[in-house]
Amino acid sequence: MKAGERTFVAALNDLVDERVVLHGWATAVKAKGASCGISFRDRTGTTTVVDASNGSSAAWREDITPESALRVVGVVRAGDTQGGSIQIVAEAVTVLSRACAPLPAVGNRHDQGVEDNCLRLRSPSNYLTFAVQSTFEAAVREFLRANSFVEIHTPKLTAGGNESGSNVFEVSYFGTPAFLVQATQFYVQRAIASGFDRVFEIGPVFRAESSNTGRHAVEFTGIDFELSWIDSHHDVMDVEESLLGYALTAVEEEHGEQIRREFGVVVELPRNPIPRIPFYRAREIVNRESAAGPDRLTHREEGLLSRYAKQEFGSSFIFITDFPADDKKFADMRADDGNAVHPTTTRSFDLIWRGIEISTGDQPEHRYDRLQSQLARSGLDRGTCQDYLEPYYLEMFRYGCPPHGGVGIGLSRLLMALLGRASIRETTFVFRGSGRPVP
Amino acid sequence: MKAGERTFVAALNDLVDERVVLHGWATAVKAKGASCGISFRDRTGTTTVVDASNGSSAAWREDITPESALRVVGVVRAGDTQGGSIQIVAEAVTVLSRACAPLPAVGNRHDQGVEDNCLRLRSPSNYLTFAVQSTFEAAVREFLRANSFVEIHTPKLTAGGNESGSNVFEVSYFGTPAFLVQATQFYVQRAIASGFDRVFEIGPVFRAESSNTGRHAVEFTGIDFELSWIDSHHDVMDVEESLLGYALTAVEEEHGEQIRREFGVVVELPRNPIPRIPFYRAREIVNRESAAGPDRLTHREEGLLSRYAKQEFGSSFIFITDFPADDKKFADMRADDGNAVHPTTTRSFDLIWRGIEISTGDQPEHRYDRLQSQLARSGLDRGTCQDYLEPYYLEMFRYGCPPHGGVGIGLSRLLMALLGRASIRETTFVFRGSGRPVP
Repeated sequence: MKAGERTFVAALNDLVDERVVLHGWATAVKAKGASCGISFRDRTGTTTVVDASNGSSAAWREDITPESALRVVGVVRAGDTQGGSIQIVAEAVTVLSRACAPLPAVGNRHDQGVEDNCLRLRSPSNYLTFAVQSTFEAAVREFLRANSFVEIHTPKLTAGGNESGSNVFEVSYFGTPAFLVQATQFYVQRAIASGFDRVFEIGPVFRAESSNTGRHAVEFTGIDFELSWIDSHHDVMDVEESLLGYALTAVEEEHGEQIRREFGVVVELPRNPIPRIPFYRAREIVNRESAAGPDRLTHREEGLLSRYAKQEFGSSFIFITDFPADDKKFADMRADDGNAVHPTTTRSFDLIWRGIEISTGDQPEHRYDRLQSQLARSGLDRGTCQDYLEPYYLEMFRYGCPPHGGVGIGLSRLLMALLGRASIRETTFVFRGSGRPVP
Repeated sequence: MKAGERTFVAALNDLVDERVVLHGWATAVKAKGASCGISFRDRTGTTTVVDASNGSSAAWREDITPESALRVVGVVRAGDTQGGSIQIVAEAVTVLSRACAPLPAVGNRHDQGVEDNCLRLRSPSNYLTFAVQSTFEAAVREFLRANSFVEIHTPKLTAGGNESGSNVFEVSYFGTPAFLVQATQFYVQRAIASGFDRVFEIGPVFRAESSNTGRHAVEFTGIDFELSWIDSHHDVMDVEESLLGYALTAVEEEHGEQIRREFGVVVELPRNPIPRIPFYRAREIVNRESAAGPDRLTHREEGLLSRYAKQEFGSSFIFITDFPADDKKFADMRADDGNAVHPTTTRSFDLIWRGIEISTGDQPEHRYDRLQSQLARSGLDRGTCQDYLEPYYLEMFRYGCPPHGGVGIGLSRLLMALLGRASIRETTFVFRGSGRPVP
């Protein structure tokens, strides 16, 4: 079918008395009586299809079960009996694919016991979710390319490259063990060390964690960008806040109205700059010892900080920066201004939006001598991990790696915040948790 | 560093007598004598940095080893002693990252014994390869989005979903076996069955094949698009040839001159339409029994067909269509016009460019009853594969799946053809073959 030969339901109002070709699904079929006809849906809306003989030769309807895929050729009429709504008077209805009957129950995606099926995914809110994702990504790429970033693709299979040995998926790689990447950062850093200046990648990331929090998936799409020649992690935050402002404005312009209608949510744009609160100060704001440990925040605390930002600065976006240093994370650059009151910190930051951590970023250490001593102090043992880090991670820094930093944004989490959804299952096309990886 | 504070070497000619900030690498350092200075490179070109005192206070140079990463602040001068070439008279040179000495030997990427390192990747031809890739992809997305395709991300981990059980990577998934996807098609079809109309994905694909052909990688980036409501696979070819024409024109406009200079290759644009030759006819053209088997072509034959297209039609792009049907491939739609002379064929096609198969596409069977009988005839046994296909693959077709078709394009292979490279290693940022997956 050539693109020009198809009409969408949303365009019918402007085509009264014209002959059109529609493609979509029967949502209900009423074969007899005065109001006989087919309720018809495509991804832009619904209409009614009646036959030219006004019900007298309804033979073609017998074969049509709900959710059957149809091609309808007919003339658009301003309906007279149905309160003025548009109808299609069909010349031909072709069943392209007949749906089995009866239809299965359509579960709630949030309900973790129910497997997805294609019918539930046909809802307008589902399509909108992924149309928004596609618009957001396109704007992200537009912004990054306009700012001299080059898109790259890095390997997902590696003999190492993961900072910690836990929570990784092991793969049998021609008889030897390999792993799926837990983060894209190692390889985007490799591009930086290879002189690429500014790079980004949008691709899958794998974490073998079986949390059932509504925010975690074992496989998710990461948006990672990394840039050279920075002075500090604040240069990275500068790029991220401009990027989000640009991309969310694009979403608001293209889908804002529909998002309000389907999800009852207004697209929130970030202030520029987004407030930047050091971790030690964030702890003072939430005013308590945290259950998350000395260098992290709980989800509840992230929610409190987001509300604090909304109240103080008028927007729920907030950067938490300068997390405490941890010897085990040898690759982090230590801040120069650590002192006894606020112990050594790293050039790191998280971005929280509507209570959800949507990205994490940093300026890693790029100086070979410092990395060597930090690795020695880390106590990482000389197992598989070390065997990989020693030649491959450190090699990147031997020959003049520029200072650099970057961010990883979780795409489905960002969509949760953007659309006000309660679970990452709602914003992932096919979700992967700790259950069997089906469908 | 703010973007505006940096100058690239390529821009220096227009900035004589101005103060600039450069970031890049020392390629060589000459600390003594009249021509003392630093040869300096960024990704746009090379220049020379001399110090303000004209060699008398050369202390800062002692520390600078080749490939050290530098920030240079200085004034641009039209050189007087060096044949008029531009120089930077430095006010300050900061070593941001000192390279270890001596530098390692830089191998030829084509040489399969040599591991990549970041130094080799710093060559201008390498950067150009991936800048071209980024431009090509951006144009592909622009074209597809303008034609109502939505970008999606589908899972790479699956309990099945691969048509054959061979050549898959097995993953330990919370104690049960899972696999990395061999093709994106199953999941883009799922989006079609879910009412998405037109979708595309650009992401990794995994094939556990240890071929060392120069054309195979075990992990590569696939560009997959799929569209609903087609009449036949020719509708898919129509989209693909327009897509390639658009995206290759964008590459020619942005990088054509540089590609000629670096690789000695002219960007070849496809004719529209690209010639479409049925498989049986392609066999007649190469005029022999094939060593590849009854339903395939050898690389040599692909080369012959590409040269045939060049000679007959003036362009080396050629579609080979309608491959013979194979009972084992139960998901393929059978052509209606199979007969005794040309046995049953499928609605399938490959695209060959400069002798390289760069994509493969088809219209799969979408009618539930036909799929059931084709699956029964396939003889696929009821193992893991069947266990997955039966509920999950077939489920997509139970409730009115539209007729659809699509294509998978191998991005690195396309770059091989585009840039005239002999090996896929040259066009993959970090290559994965059957050796240990490092770096």
